[in-house]
Amino acid sequence: MAEATILVLNGPNLNMLGKREPAIYGATTLADIEGMCRAEAATRGVAIDFRQSNHEGDLVTWSQEARETHAGIIVNAGALTHTSVALRDALLSSELPVVEVHLSNIHARETFRHHSYIAPIAVGMICGLGAKGYVLAIEAMADIVRPTP
Amino acid sequence: MAEATILVLNGPNLNMLGKREPAIYGATTLADIEGMCRAEAATRGVAIDFRQSNHEGDLVTWSQEARETHAGIIVNAGALTHTSVALRDALLSSELPVVEVHLSNIHARETFRHHSYIAPIAVGMICGLGAKGYVLAIEAMADIVRPTP
Amino acid sequence: MAEATILVLNGPNLNMLGKREPAIYGATTLADIEGMCRAEAATRGVAIDFRQSNHEGDLVTWSQEARETHAGIIVNAGALTHTSVALRDALLSSELPVVEVHLSNIHARETFRHHSYIAPIAVGMICGLGAKGYVLAIEAMADIVRPTP
Amino acid sequence: MAEATILVLNGPNLNMLGKREPAIYGATTLADIEGMCRAEAATRGVAIDFRQSNHEGDLVTWSQEARETHAGIIVNAGALTHTSVALRDALLSSELPVVEVHLSNIHARETFRHHSYIAPIAVGMICGLGAKGYVLAIEAMADIVRPTP
Amino acid sequence: MAEATILVLNGPNLNMLGKREPAIYGATTLADIEGMCRAEAATRGVAIDFRQSNHEGDLVTWSQEARETHAGIIVNAGALTHTSVALRDALLSSELPVVEVHLSNIHARETFRHHSYIAPIAVGMICGLGAKGYVLAIEAMADIVRPTP
Amino acid sequence: MAEATILVLNGPNLNMLGKREPAIYGATTLADIEGMCRAEAATRGVAIDFRQSNHEGDLVTWSQEARETHAGIIVNAGALTHTSVALRDALLSSELPVVEVHLSNIHARETFRHHSYIAPIAVGMICGLGAKGYVLAIEAMADIVRPTP
Amino acid sequence: MAEATILVLNGPNLNMLGKREPAIYGATTLADIEGMCRAEAATRGVAIDFRQSNHEGDLVTWSQEARETHAGIIVNAGALTHTSVALRDALLSSELPVVEVHLSNIHARETFRHHSYIAPIAVGMICGLGAKGYVLAIEAMADIVRPTP
Amino acid sequence: MAEATILVLNGPNLNMLGKREPAIYGATTLADIEGMCRAEAATRGVAIDFRQSNHEGDLVTWSQEARETHAGIIVNAGALTHTSVALRDALLSSELPVVEVHLSNIHARETFRHHSYIAPIAVGMICGLGAKGYVLAIEAMADIVRPTP
Amino acid sequence: MAEATILVLNGPNLNMLGKREPAIYGATTLADIEGMCRAEAATRGVAIDFRQSNHEGDLVTWSQEARETHAGIIVNAGALTHTSVALRDALLSSELPVVEVHLSNIHARETFRHHSYIAPIAVGMICGLGAKGYVLAIEAMADIVRPTP
Amino acid sequence: MAEATILVLNGPNLNMLGKREPAIYGATTLADIEGMCRAEAATRGVAIDFRQSNHEGDLVTWSQEARETHAGIIVNAGALTHTSVALRDALLSSELPVVEVHLSNIHARETFRHHSYIAPIAVGMICGLGAKGYVLAIEAMADIVRPTP
Amino acid sequence: MAEATILVLNGPNLNMLGKREPAIYGATTLADIEGMCRAEAATRGVAIDFRQSNHEGDLVTWSQEARETHAGIIVNAGALTHTSVALRDALLSSELPVVEVHLSNIHARETFRHHSYIAPIAVGMICGLGAKGYVLAIEAMADIVRPTP
Amino acid sequence: MAEATILVLNGPNLNMLGKREPAIYGATTLADIEGMCRAEAATRGVAIDFRQSNHEGDLVTWSQEARETHAGIIVNAGALTHTSVALRDALLSSELPVVEVHLSNIHARETFRHHSYIAPIAVGMICGLGAKGYVLAIEAMADIVRPTP
Repeated sequence: MAEATILVLNGPNLNMLGKREPAIYGATTLADIEGMCRAEAATRGVAIDFRQSNHEGDLVTWSQEARETHAGIIVNAGALTHTSVALRDALLSSELPVVEVHLSNIHARETFRHHSYIAPIAVGMICGLGAKGYVLAIEAMADIVRPTP
Repeated sequence: MAEATILVLNGPNLNMLGKREPAIYGATTLADIEGMCRAEAATRGVAIDFRQSNHEGDLVTWSQEARETHAGIIVNAGALTHTSVALRDALLSSELPVVEVHLSNIHARETFRHHSYIAPIAVGMICGLGAKGYVLAIEAMADIVRPTP
Repeated sequence: MAEATILVLNGPNLNMLGKREPAIYGATTLADIEGMCRAEAATRGVAIDFRQSNHEGDLVTWSQEARETHAGIIVNAGALTHTSVALRDALLSSELPVVEVHLSNIHARETFRHHSYIAPIAVGMICGLGAKGYVLAIEAMADIVRPTP
Repeated sequence: MAEATILVLNGPNLNMLGKREPAIYGATTLADIEGMCRAEAATRGVAIDFRQSNHEGDLVTWSQEARETHAGIIVNAGALTHTSVALRDALLSSELPVVEVHLSNIHARETFRHHSYIAPIAVGMICGLGAKGYVLAIEAMADIVRPTP
Repeated sequence: MAEATILVLNGPNLNMLGKREPAIYGATTLADIEGMCRAEAATRGVAIDFRQSNHEGDLVTWSQEARETHAGIIVNAGALTHTSVALRDALLSSELPVVEVHLSNIHARETFRHHSYIAPIAVGMICGLGAKGYVLAIEAMADIVRPTP
Repeated sequence: MAEATILVLNGPNLNMLGKREPAIYGATTLADIEGMCRAEAATRGVAIDFRQSNHEGDLVTWSQEARETHAGIIVNAGALTHTSVALRDALLSSELPVVEVHLSNIHARETFRHHSYIAPIAVGMICGLGAKGYVLAIEAMADIVRPTP
Repeated sequence: MAEATILVLNGPNLNMLGKREPAIYGATTLADIEGMCRAEAATRGVAIDFRQSNHEGDLVTWSQEARETHAGIIVNAGALTHTSVALRDALLSSELPVVEVHLSNIHARETFRHHSYIAPIAVGMICGLGAKGYVLAIEAMADIVRPTP
Repeated sequence: MAEATILVLNGPNLNMLGKREPAIYGATTLADIEGMCRAEAATRGVAIDFRQSNHEGDLVTWSQEARETHAGIIVNAGALTHTSVALRDALLSSELPVVEVHLSNIHARETFRHHSYIAPIAVGMICGLGAKGYVLAIEAMADIVRPTP
Repeated sequence: MAEATILVLNGPNLNMLGKREPAIYGATTLADIEGMCRAEAATRGVAIDFRQSNHEGDLVTWSQEARETHAGIIVNAGALTHTSVALRDALLSSELPVVEVHLSNIHARETFRHHSYIAPIAVGMICGLGAKGYVLAIEAMADIVRPTP
Repeated sequence: MAEATILVLNGPNLNMLGKREPAIYGATTLADIEGMCRAEAATRGVAIDFRQSNHEGDLVTWSQEARETHAGIIVNAGALTHTSVALRDALLSSELPVVEVHLSNIHARETFRHHSYIAPIAVGMICGLGAKGYVLAIEAMADIVRPTP
Repeated sequence: MAEATILVLNGPNLNMLGKREPAIYGATTLADIEGMCRAEAATRGVAIDFRQSNHEGDLVTWSQEARETHAGIIVNAGALTHTSVALRDALLSSELPVVEVHLSNIHARETFRHHSYIAPIAVGMICGLGAKGYVLAIEAMADIVRPTP
Repeated sequence: MAEATILVLNGPNLNMLGKREPAIYGATTLADIEGMCRAEAATRGVAIDFRQSNHEGDLVTWSQEARETHAGIIVNAGALTHTSVALRDALLSSELPVVEVHLSNIHARETFRHHSYIAPIAVGMICGLGAKGYVLAIEAMADIVRPTP
């Protein structure tokens, strides 16, 4: 049987990882993270589909389309976490399990980053653990989407 | 004389109608609604131009362009209702009458859906009446844009 | 079979329509609106029972009594929209579908008019469309209360 | 010596008890509660005067008049609990001890029901214990109004 | 020429004046105040129409009716000052000048008495000056309604 | 059959009753209240287990343990009412009916005492009726836990 | 016996009266108002001491000094009404009766003008009645400071 | 040495300048402003790169890319000023000096326009000075980016 | 024809410039800024009148007096920006165009510095550009006050 | 070299796991979780010290003591997450890396559970992933405390 | 006559003084502070009873017991300052004068440390003066509890 | 070596001490306090410069000037504590250590007195200890400004 595919969504500015504010985000690039995710996914018997966009509309469309083709969504919506009801609704419309990831600890930054529109509709959240957080999310999602034998 | 054309704008996730959360939105698709609107418009002697996008920027541009070519705008901005000042400004810049529609009763949902950036600059709002709400909006808009004989 | 009767409730000061603040409410009187509603109801195969009171207690009692005798309630509670929990509870106690109507766009007026105690327990709301809003509400309610053939 | 009389005031919609939202209020009618109160009052050596109105003005007037003729007031103001400063003032003007009763637990319902204008000027409150709450209030009030031998 | 008549409206519990909380309101009764108002009105060449009700609906109706028959409204709405949008709207619908009076200094009492729904639509307010405040309001209103020779 | 046992929990400072601030709490000691509760319980055919602690942790543990051994919990959490989510969770974890009691009227005291973390998960609340409130709570709880014959 | 003297304090910008924003304040100058006050005072058997300053410190000092030499203070603190705790404290330290006056209706202007630091420590307030408000305040203060025969 | 290039970013609806709400924005078009900016830049020895988009994602991407190729960013984000955390983060990620410009005085408009997500991370802001504000911003930015001789 | 004179007002603590917190305000003194303003004014064909005071009352009086003698006001009110309604009113009473300047970026400092009482009544604001901001304000004001040829 | 030991702290009511509200927390007991943690720790080359208390004081003391003996703290403070500044301070005083874990998704529960006093001082948080969240936290902490070879 | 004894209460984490966050609290240990207090007390003719606990319950019990045996309480409740109503009530129940001390300036730290539940029921507060603050509190308390000769 | 001089600043209304509201401030005059301060200063080997003004501007100027001539500032800003950002900035500009004193316990008075603009920039605060508080502040400041031998 074909393995389940997990959509890993990355929002605005995550393409700048490794170039921008290393004190907060570190030197790891998004490609590095994709590599770590693929490695972990291989270990866990799942596939991943790793994407990034600076456009809310793309993230919305990808979330909608995942409904038919993916088994779960890991999302780091970046700044849209705090402002996008549209992405929340799109994730809901996918009817897939969602795990939210943030590289930095959003609770230790500006007040407007403490609230997430996605968190209440996600299964759970991992934040502050850097790139490792993505790997842990893959591990958690694999458990969720893997059929119990 | 050519009949007036009403722009019917649909925001993010409305393309998922009939597929998503039927308990809230019902089984009617956006195409079904477009059909109902066309039927009503025909009866009322107006034309409609029915569009949907998941991109705020598209909705903004379409609203701006309507200024020269349309007689009124019916808008269901979906989640952007609650977050988009840009769409509000674009609708204002059209200098056209705007009627806001929502399929569900936004006042009976999460608190963040109670506020609309569009409502204060619209002529009026119809919500909670499902697809029928669009039909009623066409009827109302037809009255507004039809030249008094 | 006898046709369904819709209770149309009007709250404080709506008896002043056509006399008061025409810039906001227009020159149409409440009797004019009743006439428009009756005409629409006739078209839709329903009857209407059209009432107004300046007393919250009357509106509460009428809502309660409608439970046994009416098929739905269209309510323009006027200023009580924003202050009366009692009317909300009475409408709930009727166990009838409720459609809320406002002549003006309450979202474009003073902040204290933005909140409605009735909206969260209504099927939906129509506002800002003037007397036409009542007609549309009759049309919507007729759909709701009419037995599907 | 004539026994003390306790005024038991019931606000809007309490006349619907047993007919409305039984999941919250149960099947007991207001007449049932009056009966239970009379039985308890008889046991405690006090009389009761049991009233209900959907009009705030009636409850205000009855509270004012109680000043000369009653020994205490038990009040379930229903929805007016949360909105009526006039009833609060009327209860104060009676210069009688007031015990507030609610059938349901107002702290477990909508946020706007958590605040009572009456509570701060009452001796105490009993809520969430259903019809039994009235009986307990009679028992408590009897202690308060009964002359110490 | 017939003299102008000023409607003096008194809200809930003002009929208890002189009986209730004398530490706040003093021993003067509402009849005493009416007498003082009549005396002042006679001096100023105006008539007065002095009324009180515990029912918001009565105050609303009287305000509406004043439109045709009175020249101005002096209103002490009592507790409704803080809760009644309906009375505010009725006073507005009269299209008459309104002067608000309060016996006590509402800014020195509970927080919920600091806000008045009537104040923003009144010409002005006099508070804290006891019964004298009514007399001063008559004097001020007489100036407003008296035709300049 | 053995009679049901009700746990009566008393929080911080209730051991000071009769010694502290008699203007608010009266001269009755906690031992007096325990005596009154025992007397009432005897009348109602239930047993009571009456405890007090100044340690939140003790109250939490006792609530947890009650799950296996008691039929209901009457709780006067004192100051923890307003600050302890842990006690709320422990009471919930007992899966027993909870009745909240307060000697004083918490709604008539400082603002921070108006909110109770326990109230929303309790069956009901009795406050402001002094030691009598405990007796009424026993009476109410006896009704709740007594098997219907 | 020497007549009582009332201090009439005017705050910042009141020296601009008649020159500034006549739509709100009218064409009457502060000297005109002083004249009207003197005329009224003469009628009422009191003297007045009429002052204005743009410096909070002057108003504070004058209020303090009034303690020994004046019988009451009428104060229109202008913009300091909304910002000066120092003036409030100075008025309190005078231990004299204070009547607050505003030419315009502060409740009908910007939100930050709705709150007065002086109101809670004044006997009462007159606002919105223009220069006439000063005259009425003199009349009210004369009643307060005149020895009862 | 090649001259420094300043990116001038314009957000949603700024393409409508001169067509929309001239009472607020005047008749100058965005092309006019670009012309004025080019003229000023020529005088100051800097180049400009002038862009507009209705898509947040475009503005985000352009800001990111500026990092390698531009010396500073002048941004009039239009409505996104008040809602876009993503643009704020993108501007930050450019590690370039940012000057914020608004044609109108955002502090004199609706409350939701008073807050800017960009302001706290910008060097400074110029608002309310119309097209001239852009010219002043070029002048200020030229000083910032010009190498001190 | 005599050239127009612009009043440049500086509030409390601006006399400390160059001595105080150089990390925020730099080493430039107020005299330096005056010099830069005079140079710019000479270029623009206007005169300036440059003043500073630590007393709100002085700034109020100067603003009032400018009405007859000056053509516009540039104001850096320092800390009074956030607290002085009196200065706002005085600037309004001058009926002159006002441009607000701040050396630092007030939106990037403590929350209480984000709000300006002056901004809503000014033509516009320049902040965060240091002494250069004054020069730009002179340039902008010269455009405003210069008669169009 | 001796392996690093991680303190795993569990707050009030976590001892009830598997017995309480399984819909939210599942059937896994705290002993089960300890077992899973030990297994993971063995894999990662670290030791764990697993504790639970219903007393805030115990958790505070254990956190303080960890300073000398442990390499990191994983904490699920239960309800104390939302109320205990003391535990936050104790964790800080340990000067150890802290990872916060919650079994349920605290952002999807009552509003008062959305805020954590611990989150801002933790490295990161994992929530909503059930017992698996502990395992992931061990994995993350092992990376943090393991000396880089 | 035996000298008065002052209870010096220290809350959670104060036992870590000198070990924890020296940048905020300095290197002085709690034992050092006790020594300084004893020295000062000796000078002032009073005794001290110096205690610390990480358990709110202990602090509550010690405060209660002080009622019979001590003359005053100096309290540094640490983090409980901001969260413990129970300690506030216990201090009140002691009916002793209370002086609050904080080593750091709580007004210059996180917002949640600005509010103290103890301050409103204390005689006064000393904060930000380090260990010296305890010494000053002893000195102040000695004045309060020493019998005037 | 010349001894250090401490500036003791007193704000509005403190000149009224001993004359005003003795229930709050006691009978001690400001001259008495100055005497006590001088006595303490003599003991501690420092000089004091004791001033009072009702003008914010004076306090601002004195604080600025202290920079060159004084070693520290003790400030009781009276009502300006709660309203003056200008004084806060002036104290900061002095770059001297500041100790804040209040005679009364500001946390036990009106809510608007709970916040101090000065506290966050002061070393510490002493309040509620009456005139003794000044003496303790001298003692604390002497420690701060005295050169360590």
